[in-house]
Amino acid sequence: MCSFYDRMITQSHINTEMNNIFSDRISDVPKSFIREILKVAVDEEVISFAGGLPNRDLFPLEELKQASDAVFKHVGPSALQYSSSEGSLKIRKFISARYLQKFNLEIPVEHILITSGSQQGLDLLGKTFLNEGDDIIIEEPGYLGAIQAFSIYKPNFLPITVSDDGLDIDTLNNVLNNREVKLIYSVPNFQNPSGVSYPEKNRKEISETIGHKNVLIIEDDPYGDLRYAGKPGLSFKHLVPERSILLGSFSKTVVPGFRLGWIVADEDIYEKLLIAKQASDLHTNQFAQCVIEEYLAMGNFESHVSSIKEVYGRQRDAMINSIKKYFPSNVRYTQPDGGMFLWVALPHDLSSMKLFNIAIEKKVAFVPGHPFYIGKKETNTLRLNFSNVDESTIETGIQRLGEAIGELLEQNEKSPGNNRGSAV
Amino acid sequence: MCSFYDRMITQSHINTEMNNIFSDRISDVPKSFIREILKVAVDEEVISFAGGLPNRDLFPLEELKQASDAVFKHVGPSALQYSSSEGSLKIRKFISARYLQKFNLEIPVEHILITSGSQQGLDLLGKTFLNEGDDIIIEEPGYLGAIQAFSIYKPNFLPITVSDDGLDIDTLNNVLNNREVKLIYSVPNFQNPSGVSYPEKNRKEISETIGHKNVLIIEDDPYGDLRYAGKPGLSFKHLVPERSILLGSFSKTVVPGFRLGWIVADEDIYEKLLIAKQASDLHTNQFAQCVIEEYLAMGNFESHVSSIKEVYGRQRDAMINSIKKYFPSNVRYTQPDGGMFLWVALPHDLSSMKLFNIAIEKKVAFVPGHPFYIGKKETNTLRLNFSNVDESTIETGIQRLGEAIGELLEQNEKSPGNNRGSAV
Repeated sequence: MCSFYDRMITQSHINTEMNNIFSDRISDVPKSFIREILKVAVDEEVISFAGGLPNRDLFPLEELKQASDAVFKHVGPSALQYSSSEGSLKIRKFISARYLQKFNLEIPVEHILITSGSQQGLDLLGKTFLNEGDDIIIEEPGYLGAIQAFSIYKPNFLPITVSDDGLDIDTLNNVLNNREVKLIYSVPNFQNPSGVSYPEKNRKEISETIGHKNVLIIEDDPYGDLRYAGKPGLSFKHLVPERSILLGSFSKTVVPGFRLGWIVADEDIYEKLLIAKQASDLHTNQFAQCVIEEYLAMGNFESHVSSIKEVYGRQRDAMINSIKKYFPSNVRYTQPDGGMFLWVALPHDLSSMKLFNIAIEKKVAFVPGHPFYIGKKETNTLRLNFSNVDESTIETGIQRLGEAIGELLEQNEKSPGNNRGSAV
Repeated sequence: MCSFYDRMITQSHINTEMNNIFSDRISDVPKSFIREILKVAVDEEVISFAGGLPNRDLFPLEELKQASDAVFKHVGPSALQYSSSEGSLKIRKFISARYLQKFNLEIPVEHILITSGSQQGLDLLGKTFLNEGDDIIIEEPGYLGAIQAFSIYKPNFLPITVSDDGLDIDTLNNVLNNREVKLIYSVPNFQNPSGVSYPEKNRKEISETIGHKNVLIIEDDPYGDLRYAGKPGLSFKHLVPERSILLGSFSKTVVPGFRLGWIVADEDIYEKLLIAKQASDLHTNQFAQCVIEEYLAMGNFESHVSSIKEVYGRQRDAMINSIKKYFPSNVRYTQPDGGMFLWVALPHDLSSMKLFNIAIEKKVAFVPGHPFYIGKKETNTLRLNFSNVDESTIETGIQRLGEAIGELLEQNEKSPGNNRGSAV
């Protein structure tokens, strides 16, 4: 016995020398740069536009408390037992009815799969569709969480630029004509990180193009309900129903901590997604689903969404007005009709990483643009979040950021070229 | 416009003709046969030993209600916000302290990752370790959920028999000497489906063997706390700490509906698992974690586990006593020291699928053994669950099942060979 334990001890460092023990895929997943940024931003004096958090002051705490009480009282143990992989039938009925009422979309309940947040939806889609080396079109700049989720399945990312004009249609046509693309990942409403939405014309052009191809479009729509201006565009579920998969979430309209999202997909895809769901976590937290059932049954969901829109809308206005007031006029920025983010491009291709370092000294944080691109180490772009900071704090923070940009411009005048990122 | 929509309509059936749209992996995942079985067993007159559910009458409903109230009152919005991928620090500290106190295992908090149930732990391990074609040893019969989770990553399964003697050590040595095995998946305590535990001698032999090899052992331990007889065996975290990954869960000791489990792994592995976790669902339901924090702080967890053990222990005894009374004496069965299942082998290699059909007519259900093997369509084995049926119902159900076995034996005497499964 003793010799056995001695051997164990002498072997105790072998593990770190074990070769090839990890999968190839896990080495390919980009580390969350944003997490590192957020660590810098925890200093209480720092005004942070870096996170992507909804405003916690707007969480419907009292109603969720009542809903939770009702679940313990009326549902009891079955709210705490193992449950179905498809998820709550009542929630799926609510989602189906709401798509019809709000968006004139006919979605059968059987096409709705509850997921543990939209992030799990992305993982399930990766599991279900992506072989190693498969072509997938993503937006550039694009949502980092989607890039992470799909990276696990080692696809070949084909980034296509998004702008106020939507997804670059010429490039899309070109890519689809020359490659066997399997999936297109899109956030057509108030995209993360840029805040832009695809114009109606762009949506129709995309639909016409992909209707001829052996390709599916994923429409990730966590922000669609948060519209502060303009008219909603048609969903790809309207335009190319047979070619589209739609993702939704309660994270931005109720609370993110419950991790409740959903996927809308046709039967043959649904069946595969369900197998992937079972293999991934059996089912989504049953108690949280029961609480949301009760909450939705109270009937205040729409007025709650309206109140979020009112507050975020004002915060967006505050940010745009402050930018006009405090940023040099050669700084470009998007003016989103909804969502939680806007996107800034510095003049002279100045590095947003350099700006970040100056900004942190001035106690204001944001996310530099490069993690939203595949393979870039620097850009002249940055993301600003406006959902989680109140109006007067927004003005103070943007003023600080304007000063930081001013300093960077001065430095650049003194030694031009030294502070360059890469143009986008 | 019109022609565009017309084209859409004529194209509406193309989707089903889309070739090669799904990933190879998703076609390889076995469908949950157990789910199909459970559908048959919903008839209220059927006594079901088929499921794997904990007994809902034992859920600590009142304490969880109090804990939930406390979370709304004292924690508030941060219980509903986005949270850390590592999971609740308080829960991880509790788990760490309990490993030390109950099992004399020193596990740093930094080695504990909260997962959305143990099932997600298995998926994260698949993501982190398994390249296509990698060798993984699994138990035979083995846990179906693990086979499903790993199947996604297309490994090469190498099944090794488990019995009352534990994992077959000769086969293990043989396989490890001849193949480059990456992972061993084991459930050493009260295994699902067989109910057997690895004897101490077997654990030490396994540890000695793998200490010399470039291989990791996964110890999945959802049932370890549910011991009704005998002495706990040493964890592989004791025996080969650098070679072992340990999985735990609150599903059997508190409630499964919260989907709360954990993985214990060393730093280098932990770091990769954390990336996989972020990509999979960002983090586990934060509200459920806060409620469990409060529940654990109340201090009744150990006495609650004791009360579960008392009830399940009596139910196990009732099942064994009824089997002795009602089954033909040439039926073999395991006598587990804990957990939720026991395992039955029919004489003359009779088919447990044939038995299932007779049993359902007699209003009693179980899970035939073949889904717990790789590539088998029939066996002479079956799994019986005793956690979710009370003692008197167990006696009635086992009596019915004994009659069904009697009928199958009679049929076999009349036309021998016709009712054969395959021997195990």
